[in-house]
Order: sequence, then C-alpha cells, then structure tokens
Amino acid sequence: MTRIVLDAMGSDEYPLPEIEAARAAVQRWRDPLILAGPRSRLAPLLEQNAGGDSRITIADASEVLGMTDKAARAARGKADSSMAVGIDLLRDGRADAFVTAGNTGGAMSTALLRLGRLRGVRRPALTAVFPVRGGRAVILDIGANVDCKAEYILQFAVMGSVYAQVALGIPSPRIGLISNGEEPSKGTALIHETYPLLKATGLNFVGNVEAKEIYAGEVDVAVTDGFTGNVFLKTSESVARFMTEVIRDEITSGPLTAVGGLLARPAFDRVRRLLDPAEYGAAPLLGLNGLVFVGHGRSDARALVNAIGAARAAAEAGLLEALRAALEPYLVRQTAGAAAGD
Amino acid sequence: MTRIVLDAMGSDEYPLPEIEAARAAVQRWRDPLILAGPRSRLAPLLEQNAGGDSRITIADASEVLGMTDKAARAARGKADSSMAVGIDLLRDGRADAFVTAGNTGGAMSTALLRLGRLRGVRRPALTAVFPVRGGRAVILDIGANVDCKAEYILQFAVMGSVYAQVALGIPSPRIGLISNGEEPSKGTALIHETYPLLKATGLNFVGNVEAKEIYAGEVDVAVTDGFTGNVFLKTSESVARFMTEVIRDEITSGPLTAVGGLLARPAFDRVRRLLDPAEYGAAPLLGLNGLVFVGHGRSDARALVNAIGAARAAAEAGLLEALRAALEPYLVRQTAGAAAGD
Repeated sequence: MTRIVLDAMGSDEYPLPEIEAARAAVQRWRDPLILAGPRSRLAPLLEQNAGGDSRITIADASEVLGMTDKAARAARGKADSSMAVGIDLLRDGRADAFVTAGNTGGAMSTALLRLGRLRGVRRPALTAVFPVRGGRAVILDIGANVDCKAEYILQFAVMGSVYAQVALGIPSPRIGLISNGEEPSKGTALIHETYPLLKATGLNFVGNVEAKEIYAGEVDVAVTDGFTGNVFLKTSESVARFMTEVIRDEITSGPLTAVGGLLARPAFDRVRRLLDPAEYGAAPLLGLNGLVFVGHGRSDARALVNAIGAARAAAEAGLLEALRAALEPYLVRQTAGAAAGD
Repeated sequence: MTRIVLDAMGSDEYPLPEIEAARAAVQRWRDPLILAGPRSRLAPLLEQNAGGDSRITIADASEVLGMTDKAARAARGKADSSMAVGIDLLRDGRADAFVTAGNTGGAMSTALLRLGRLRGVRRPALTAVFPVRGGRAVILDIGANVDCKAEYILQFAVMGSVYAQVALGIPSPRIGLISNGEEPSKGTALIHETYPLLKATGLNFVGNVEAKEIYAGEVDVAVTDGFTGNVFLKTSESVARFMTEVIRDEITSGPLTAVGGLLARPAFDRVRRLLDPAEYGAAPLLGLNGLVFVGHGRSDARALVNAIGAARAAAEAGLLEALRAALEPYLVRQTAGAAAGD
C-alpha cells in the first residue's frame, strides 16, 4: 500500500482539481489517499464530487499558502497550512509521499523546516523531467539554489543519477554538466571547479554538454546550478510556446495551409502532448528527508493524477533509500568541504 | 561609400561562399569590397566566379585561422591570418567594417589585440539578434565573458540599447535583465548587484525578465552574463530544432497527416526562415574600437550577404560614434569601479 497525501489547496483552481484527482487516483490505484486542507470546505465538496469515497480522508488544515507569500515567512508562520499539515504526515510516517501543485519555494522551505535534509545533503534540489530526442531527461537544479558551490552540483549529479534510474528505468544514467561548450576548458569558474569533482565519481559522467547534446538525447541527467537550470527550462518552454504560436499563425494565414493544418492536427496534438509538462506530472525535491513532489500551478485533475503517479512510482521504487545509499560515499568528502568552505 | 572587408577564409566551406557573397554584395550595393585571404588562391577563383569585377580587391593574407586554434594563441601567433589582415584594414581606416564567418573567439581576441576596446569599455560583448513575438530582440553577452561583474553588464545594457536603436530602429529600447523571476528579489548575487546599477541609468530598464517575457516580445534588449546568454541562445536553437524534428516525425507518421504537412509546407518554410539565424546574418562584437561582425560558421553566400548588409547598416548609421557617445556618462563610474575592483 502506498499512501499519498495531496495538498488540496495547491493548484490555481484549488480545490476542485485536487478532489477530482483524488477520486481518480483511488479508483485507479485502489490505495487510500489523504487530502490536506480545511475540512469544513473539503468535506461537502468530497461528498458531492466523490460520493463520500471512504478511501479519501481529510487532514484538516486551516490556512492556504498563497503564491504571493514569501516562501520563508510562509514556512515559518503558517504551521497550519495544507502544505505544513501534509508534510507533517510524511515526517510522522503516516504517508509515503506528499504531492502539491502549490508554490515551489513554499514547498521547499516548508519541507526543509519540517522534514529536514537527507543526512549529508548540502542543498536539496528542484528537479524536472523533460522531453528530448528519443525519450526523456532529468535536469537539476532548476531553481532551488541560484548561487551554487561545486559540491552542491556534485550531489545534484548523484541524486539525479538515482532519480533517472528510478523514474526513467535507466541502469547507468549518462550525466552531463551544462556548459557553454563541450571542452573541459569551457565554462565559468564554478564549472571548472565542478568538472573534476564529477570526473572523480563513479558516475557515468560524460563531460560538459550544451543544449544541442541534451536535446539530441545524449545525456539522461543534466546537472547545473539552479539559476542556469531555471533559465534552461524556462527558455525551453517559452521557445516551444513561441514556435507553436508562429506555426499556428503561419498555417492559418492561407486557405491551403489551413486545410493542411487541419489534416495534420492529430500530429500536432501528439506533439503538444509530448511537450506538455503536465504529462509527466510533477518534479521531486531531491535531498529532503521525505518524498515531496511539486506539480505545475496550472495543473488540472489529469496533471495531478500524473503527479500522484510519479510520486507513487518513486515511493514504490524506494527512491529515498536509494538516495541515502548513493550519497553515502560523498559524506566524508562533504564533511571536509563543509568544515573548510561553508 | 561604405567599405566592407570580408574574411575570405571564415565559413566552413571557405572561400567559395565568400567569393559568391562578395560578387552579390558589390552588385547589390555598388560599393567596393575587400576580400582578406591568400591572393594566390583567391585571385583565380575571383577571375573565374566574379569575372574579375574590379570593385572586389584582395588583401593578401597567408594563413587560415582554424576553428581548432586556441583563440588567444591564434591572435598572438598569426599576424598574417585573414582575420588579422582584415582587422588591420579597419584599424588603419581603410575599411568601415569587418565581416567574418570564422571562429568567434578568434575574432574577439584578434580584434582585442589589433583594434583594442572603445575608450572606457571593460569587456566587449558578443551580441545576437533573434526572433521574438512581433519582431526581433537583441541579446548580449552570448559568450565572450562567461564570468561577469555587474559593471560589465551595465555596459552591455548601454551598448545593447544603442545597437537596438541602430539595428532595429527602436528609439527607446526596453532593456530586461535575464533572471529566474521578475521580482527584483530574484536572481543570483550578480543580478542583485546589477539590478540597481541598471535602475540608476537613464536607460529604459524594465527590470528582471524571464524567457517568457523575452519571447512574448516585452523587451528589445536582454542583458546577461556571457554564460547565461550562451545557454539561453543555444537552448533556443536546440529546442527549435528538436520541435521541428518532432513535428516532422509526427506528420510523416500517417498518410493523412502527411498530406496535411505537404499542404502546410509553405507555412513551415516561412517558420523556418523566421527562425533561421542566417536570415539576420551576423552578430556584432560590441565594445571594440571598430565594427566587427561575426556570422555563423555554416554561413552560405546568402547568409554572408545578409551579414554584409547588417555590417553596412551599422556603419552607415554611425554605430561606433553612437556607442562612444552613449558610453560617455559611464566612464567616471567605471574608472572608480576599475580602481576599486578590477
């Protein structure tokens, strides 16, 4: 039995997508599911929309963690938020994974405060799975740590490798360090420091990579600092949207191309699904002492069900234990580094 | 009369695309053009392909600056390269702009050594013009300076603003600082330092921007350090290529969608042209004491003609003088900064 706790107040349209997702999830996986949120508001909606399915229970939380809250203040001040209540269930061993479509920064700081980090982890990372030629790749950090040290990125590589094994089923994931050229001489001072650290691991480190190699499917995990990862992922999403708009404009600009566009529509729909972040569902915060998955704020019920699926798969594959074991060899180096530099 | 000197040995397929471009350029603009390269090799090809057009002259250079040369070594060691010979013509006032499809790093270091920087410029920047919703935008630095200081980025903004005025005809270009969120609190330590500097200028600084705003056409100039700019631009190109491949695969996977694709082909061709870097032709190195434009290594004759066109337009608009004037207010600040920090 895999016990998921779902933040009922996370998505932009909360809580109806969450209630619908909860109902679909218990029907699909036949495991109980906990909704974290205000009971007075959720109970009647559950009764109405999920026919009082007894496998869905409510963990009462009074406050909503808004997208405008400063993450840190929110984490400190709102012990009764649906995020805090949900994450406390993880901490207390009453759930196996927490899923939210709420504020990523809020989820990170709430989880850091209430769950803490895996032993020896310097900085937890926000991770994403995105489409590349021939499959999918993992990227981290995508925004939790904008200013990074080399040892953080080393740990991102270790954690990303484990996540690619578990989530993508790749035995020995190829790791690339995002740089402005493939040669080891390329990159910032941070990259010059990180490269030899990665080279010295037992990881399948293939060296520096550019976007070209990443999108050609030549790596399974792209590691980078949280600023660069954020720019990479947001640029990818923005260019995909821009191209979609340009193609639509051009196709609808003439009658013949418009007919062509109509005939080709099933192909475009497949492309859109392939590129839709909601298809994968959710990104894990790696390095926390528990499984926390964050979906997109614009998640609908389908995206939330995918998010629950990703969290369930990680829990069932023993992601947390695999991360602990993989990080073990880096604890000594890291303690030395921590004493010297941090 | 605008005198262009074209590196005859720059493109991957040199020198035939250069010779063809030279012929097309003198026919289109009716100005003389200088080809820099080995006379013994170029003269017979010119005779054969350009019918001995007397408006095309050769500046003799013996060596070719290869793509594998380390940029610095190349600049130091190869005084007789076509790049060095061409840039010397700029320095000596015998040409108005230098155009090459050769190694960007080689062009930068050769030009730094032989032309030097505009007075007061801390670091010249590599610039690109790229398509966004409703038009084009300028981005810099895209790779000349991977590790930057805030004052460098301040100067990039001043120079980028001038270039957008000259190249895109925008009177008061909107400047955005690439970050991982729009709020001033977002970003790395470098961004926190740069933001107030930009805010204090008379530039039309709109604040921090993400890829979303850039591709929505909400800024005319995106400024950033050379590492981030490089990742931004290469990610954009890679995602565009990836999407094109995915769409082609999906469309050709069924007979009906394939017919649709054929009918829609003119639309796709327009999209491809819009996204083709060769359409704009060349990117200037801004901050040098002369106009140096670098085109893509894969440039064909058409791309080289576009590159010549971009360089001509900049020369005729007085880009160099406009840059000098715009940088003037920042010389004092910068001298103080240079004394304190550099």
